Amino acid sequence: MIKVGIIGGTGYTGVELLRILSQHPEVSLQAITSRKEAGMAVAEFFPSLRGKVALKFSDPADTSLDKCNVVFFATPNGIAMQQTRILLDAGVRVIDLSADFRIKDVPEWEKWHGMSHACPDLVVEAVYGLPEINRDKIKGARLVANPGCYPTAVQLGFLPLIETGIVDTDHLIADVKSGVSGAGRNAEMHTLFAEASDNFKAYGVPGHRHLPEIKQGLSNIAARLVGLTFVPHLTPMIRGIHATLYARLTANVDLQLLYENRYANEPFLDVLPSSSHPETRSVRGSNFCRIAVHRPQGGDTVVVLTVIDNLVKGAAGQAVQNMNLMFSLPEALGIDHIAQLP
Amino acid sequence: MIKVGIIGGTGYTGVELLRILSQHPEVSLQAITSRKEAGMAVAEFFPSLRGKVALKFSDPADTSLDKCNVVFFATPNGIAMQQTRILLDAGVRVIDLSADFRIKDVPEWEKWHGMSHACPDLVVEAVYGLPEINRDKIKGARLVANPGCYPTAVQLGFLPLIETGIVDTDHLIADVKSGVSGAGRNAEMHTLFAEASDNFKAYGVPGHRHLPEIKQGLSNIAARLVGLTFVPHLTPMIRGIHATLYARLTANVDLQLLYENRYANEPFLDVLPSSSHPETRSVRGSNFCRIAVHRPQGGDTVVVLTVIDNLVKGAAGQAVQNMNLMFSLPEALGIDHIAQLP
Amino acid sequence: MIKVGIIGGTGYTGVELLRILSQHPEVSLQAITSRKEAGMAVAEFFPSLRGKVALKFSDPADTSLDKCNVVFFATPNGIAMQQTRILLDAGVRVIDLSADFRIKDVPEWEKWHGMSHACPDLVVEAVYGLPEINRDKIKGARLVANPGCYPTAVQLGFLPLIETGIVDTDHLIADVKSGVSGAGRNAEMHTLFAEASDNFKAYGVPGHRHLPEIKQGLSNIAARLVGLTFVPHLTPMIRGIHATLYARLTANVDLQLLYENRYANEPFLDVLPSSSHPETRSVRGSNFCRIAVHRPQGGDTVVVLTVIDNLVKGAAGQAVQNMNLMFSLPEALGIDHIAQLP
Amino acid sequence: MIKVGIIGGTGYTGVELLRILSQHPEVSLQAITSRKEAGMAVAEFFPSLRGKVALKFSDPADTSLDKCNVVFFATPNGIAMQQTRILLDAGVRVIDLSADFRIKDVPEWEKWHGMSHACPDLVVEAVYGLPEINRDKIKGARLVANPGCYPTAVQLGFLPLIETGIVDTDHLIADVKSGVSGAGRNAEMHTLFAEASDNFKAYGVPGHRHLPEIKQGLSNIAARLVGLTFVPHLTPMIRGIHATLYARLTANVDLQLLYENRYANEPFLDVLPSSSHPETRSVRGSNFCRIAVHRPQGGDTVVVLTVIDNLVKGAAGQAVQNMNLMFSLPEALGIDHIAQLP
Repeated sequence: MIKVGIIGGTGYTGVELLRILSQHPEVSLQAITSRKEAGMAVAEFFPSLRGKVALKFSDPADTSLDKCNVVFFATPNGIAMQQTRILLDAGVRVIDLSADFRIKDVPEWEKWHGMSHACPDLVVEAVYGLPEINRDKIKGARLVANPGCYPTAVQLGFLPLIETGIVDTDHLIADVKSGVSGAGRNAEMHTLFAEASDNFKAYGVPGHRHLPEIKQGLSNIAARLVGLTFVPHLTPMIRGIHATLYARLTANVDLQLLYENRYANEPFLDVLPSSSHPETRSVRGSNFCRIAVHRPQGGDTVVVLTVIDNLVKGAAGQAVQNMNLMFSLPEALGIDHIAQLP
Repeated sequence: MIKVGIIGGTGYTGVELLRILSQHPEVSLQAITSRKEAGMAVAEFFPSLRGKVALKFSDPADTSLDKCNVVFFATPNGIAMQQTRILLDAGVRVIDLSADFRIKDVPEWEKWHGMSHACPDLVVEAVYGLPEINRDKIKGARLVANPGCYPTAVQLGFLPLIETGIVDTDHLIADVKSGVSGAGRNAEMHTLFAEASDNFKAYGVPGHRHLPEIKQGLSNIAARLVGLTFVPHLTPMIRGIHATLYARLTANVDLQLLYENRYANEPFLDVLPSSSHPETRSVRGSNFCRIAVHRPQGGDTVVVLTVIDNLVKGAAGQAVQNMNLMFSLPEALGIDHIAQLP
Repeated sequence: MIKVGIIGGTGYTGVELLRILSQHPEVSLQAITSRKEAGMAVAEFFPSLRGKVALKFSDPADTSLDKCNVVFFATPNGIAMQQTRILLDAGVRVIDLSADFRIKDVPEWEKWHGMSHACPDLVVEAVYGLPEINRDKIKGARLVANPGCYPTAVQLGFLPLIETGIVDTDHLIADVKSGVSGAGRNAEMHTLFAEASDNFKAYGVPGHRHLPEIKQGLSNIAARLVGLTFVPHLTPMIRGIHATLYARLTANVDLQLLYENRYANEPFLDVLPSSSHPETRSVRGSNFCRIAVHRPQGGDTVVVLTVIDNLVKGAAGQAVQNMNLMFSLPEALGIDHIAQLP
Repeated sequence: MIKVGIIGGTGYTGVELLRILSQHPEVSLQAITSRKEAGMAVAEFFPSLRGKVALKFSDPADTSLDKCNVVFFATPNGIAMQQTRILLDAGVRVIDLSADFRIKDVPEWEKWHGMSHACPDLVVEAVYGLPEINRDKIKGARLVANPGCYPTAVQLGFLPLIETGIVDTDHLIADVKSGVSGAGRNAEMHTLFAEASDNFKAYGVPGHRHLPEIKQGLSNIAARLVGLTFVPHLTPMIRGIHATLYARLTANVDLQLLYENRYANEPFLDVLPSSSHPETRSVRGSNFCRIAVHRPQGGDTVVVLTVIDNLVKGAAGQAVQNMNLMFSLPEALGIDHIAQLP
């Protein structure tokens, strides 16, 4: 059994980690910390876990995580970078669900996050935890930077096009729609039910924190700096991301075949038959990413549609997928939930 | 492995049975029939099942279910009563999720359903599949009538009050709210998104088909004919039933203790601490029924709040719970999903 | 033209007052104050008002409302009681949409609101602004206490039954469901979209601030202290209240006729034909209260269903209805919007 | 008073026409026909209209509309083209909200609609009813083809860019999201609440009926054939369209100024300040189109965001705007509703 600790677990990523890990057959949950809720039973805070999780939130100051095999950070940005080194030094492996170790260009990270980075050397070491790209590196990693939800949906959609060099990478467009849980569990006015329900809007068009992460990932695939227009939108549903991706084709290939071949051996990538339209609920609660590829009216614009559950493949599920890889477990162990439909 | 067949599986109850049974460790799915969708892959019809269910819908006329150990009916009312005898005669046990075998008073059933009953003798034999009341009878049953969603929520809420004789059973009130999936997957105008969203209404106040089922159940518990006012409502959510139950106390007991004791050994009944308010999402996708009991301002009116997922404890989950009992499996096997929150 | 001021206008009641008053043919909006948003254009804060409202929020300290004919308080509880006397002394009439002047029993008010009342003498003077009960008093009032949303829906539903003395008033039950806008526009976790959507729950069963207001109103109608069980629920829609009311009949009358006659001359009360079920969207954005009355299975329990828009007849619309009465305008002037369906 | 008839009025476009026309100060509603609902009171069919509309649906066969000044078709495609000539011949002007007269290329129309056109000569005569482009022609028109909802949102967004020739018109992209009411009020499975709620998907990527209408409109503006990728999506809200439009800039202009100047005199076009993001609820129930224009990271891709209410500016409101123009009334008369927020 893998001894697991969670730091910060009162948000949506936290409760989703708990849902998955508490039923994972090779995991023993050791501790979950929260400064604010220390002493409260996890199942009192999240009634969905009554009868399933016996832990209480513990004070970070009183909680030794040294004996854990792995620790997940489900904290706001800026926390993991403060606490990771001490865990690594104690031989604990770390999976960070925040953005602290995702961007290799530290000044760029600092610009978008408005703070100095505490440990640029660990940024160098950190492995970007997208298994479809980095599977082998993840297996041996001490420190995994778990991808953001938007970046997961966008990179998995563009990957086959870019790595085969068949699109103009100077003008990629990612029009992405997210459910409201992506904004987290903080009490903020714009995500109130009476604000976000029966409503649709774009946000962050001038610039969004996930933009540099996506650009870095696509540029790595392209082996050159890509040009990307990224427009996130808020849509009135709880979970789910739908990415609609546009690129200009520069070669004539069988797109359906390209995608099916590229993802043939991926346990969580599902390429739909041609002319399909994936819907977000088909992955709700599951770790799947479903994809369809289109070439409308036979023109030179390719349209890729990808859906993920932002809290599963976009966060907690992918983190556990990375853990499985790091500990040589079957990659799908404990994350083979079937989507809940309806 | 238990060989399982499903008759009719294109509705919400069907897909939920498939979600549960396809991952049940002791179940081997043999066939799922649908006259209308015969030949279509189940996973094409329900994309959430892609990669998880390889079966196609088969034509009932071409499908032998004789070799099954158990067959579930997930059909509209009036079908199971036509086909059950032949299955029983072949030694197949039957769990009927429709209303065909729930009402012992056949003329009453015929009045509410507008048709003649095809096999009144099997109605006599059928065991009403509410494990919290009929566990032992279910174990030995050939034919289980799986309870309706409203009746499950209401009976589990009233049970401790009525069986101890501490309330006036002439004037029980059940004010119950259901998510829209309770209306099924038929294309009807009143359950369109643009009709049912951002809207709330009562329906069936003059009389609803679940009324006789609930009255029968409560009367059995009370060992006398009860008086019940039942008002169902449609609330804009997909899954979930919330029952708010009112009764006049005729004795002074510790209600919290009464409920905790009554349900102490029930694997799926969760009595919340006093002063709690269960929410439907705390059971979304799970087989739990969570309950709270209140006595506002110390008056003589008791208020019981119960929540279930109408498609799980109110339908498919309870059906599998009954199957587990019938085949001497651990009662919670394959139905221990944690609710999906958020 | 009536010169109107609004104190506090950044919440849902405020924006709804602005929607109505800015198109009212006899109203000239003079000022709207907000300590926090002083200086910001109202239409920047509420983009729905772009091109329709030119005012900026002004600092209360810099804003003279003495020249107004009437001032609306759309403030949290505890503000209006501090500022009303000075307005009344200046000859300004006041309509308070908060709870400050609704409860005649000041110690009871103080118990529920956890503060001392600043002006008990004005509580005596204040007229409870439910036109269907107090129309004549409202016409001459200097100070109107605008009813709460739950109290409006419950009182209008019970009124004909109680004033004719045909029900047991010791055991009234009000099971009421509210849209989320009823919780206001404050950033609180439990009303986030990802918390309140696809979810249903009761709350405040042990006691809710609207309980004493409703009991006072019903007791006034009954001319004796009534017994009431009041259970509010949160339902995932933006606007709307649906009250399901239960009472035991003590006399045999034609209930349909009773309601139709009682409300025959009321401009905003709409009694549906028998066997009807009003839906909240049928009053969304309108000042109507629609009502249906049932006697299920001919028993002795009467069930009354009422729907209102909590922000219109339950708040801003009723406040303007009171203003119309106070200034001898046609009662429906400027509040004759048709509900927005779908 | 203008005498108005409505043909077909049982869908969402119909009820919205009724909401608007029944309170229009210069309109006298003469008749509304429905083959299916003939004899039923309109207010029984749409309870939101109780007390506001006294008409019954009448049988088209028994209803003379010759005396009307204008008739609105709110019918499925293929009806108006059968009945328009006889009305025009009787001197009645016609505003068709269906697609029958929108496409000038009749074979193209026939390809997308799968039927022969009944009156190609009237297609030639019909004026495309987008006031921002065709105001003068509309004033004198006998027959107005009211634009579709998607086409309205897309054309108004691209118009300033294309007519000034500052973008590459070979590769325009329109990623558009629609509320579910856009699919109409027909009972279809995919628009059921339990299917469309908490879900997001694209549809019609290979081809959508609105594509030729949009291409025709943009090509007219460009005075050359444009290239367009149009991807519609279904988003879980009742009303609203959000268009996110992408184009490659070929010249360097002040985009904010361009849009503000172009729409300065338009009564229903609202250009937001730079860096804004319009939300659909800011136009819910109103005839406004709100627009924001962005140039992310100063690159050569322009992003335009437009929002409309699909049933108002995208259908009934625009139809009444056209009527106002045709009858020399103030353009905004009777359609100056403020959006309902929240």
